[in-house]
Amino acid sequence: MSETVSKQKALENLQKDADNIRYLLKKQRSFLCLTECPAFEEVADTRIYGFTCEVHFAVSCGFLTLANGKKMIRELEDDLDDIRDEAFRGQEGRNE
Amino acid sequence: MSETVSKQKALENLQKDADNIRYLLKKQRSFLCLTECPAFEEVADTRIYGFTCEVHFAVSCGFLTLANGKKMIRELEDDLDDIRDEAFRGQEGRNE
Repeated sequence: MSETVSKQKALENLQKDADNIRYLLKKQRSFLCLTECPAFEEVADTRIYGFTCEVHFAVSCGFLTLANGKKMIRELEDDLDDIRDEAFRGQEGRNE
Repeated sequence: MSETVSKQKALENLQKDADNIRYLLKKQRSFLCLTECPAFEEVADTRIYGFTCEVHFAVSCGFLTLANGKKMIRELEDDLDDIRDEAFRGQEGRNE
């Protein structure tokens, strides 16, 4: 194990984790929204909290600025909102 | 901002975050346990989940091995258990 880690690698890992969360929520959205949406909110909130802790740590290490960290979190939140809205619209379409 | 981050700095930040969680739970324990213990569990579980995400990210960056990461999480869990047990014993003492 080397004594330093490149910023590039750390940022790639952070981005990969955000994409995993997007993928997970997208895959589960129909299931989560079939039962009742609070389940989607809970899973999304928990995942965003975990990602926020990762970003907080990455910022404290100097991998990225606080502003860029907040931007990554906001983008993830917006994407998860879109995923939930899509699932909700899809469900409404089926109920008509 | 340099292009690499030293492992030493990252591990110090990780340790500092774990200590912050210990400090927070210790400070809140009497309040959290005065109402009902599930509150302590919820706060502790949420914090441990966030710390686990940080450790996961640190391991993925190569800052520490998975084994050492799991060790840090387990130590934090054990400490939070001790804090809760202390608070609970303190509360029982007052009810006698």
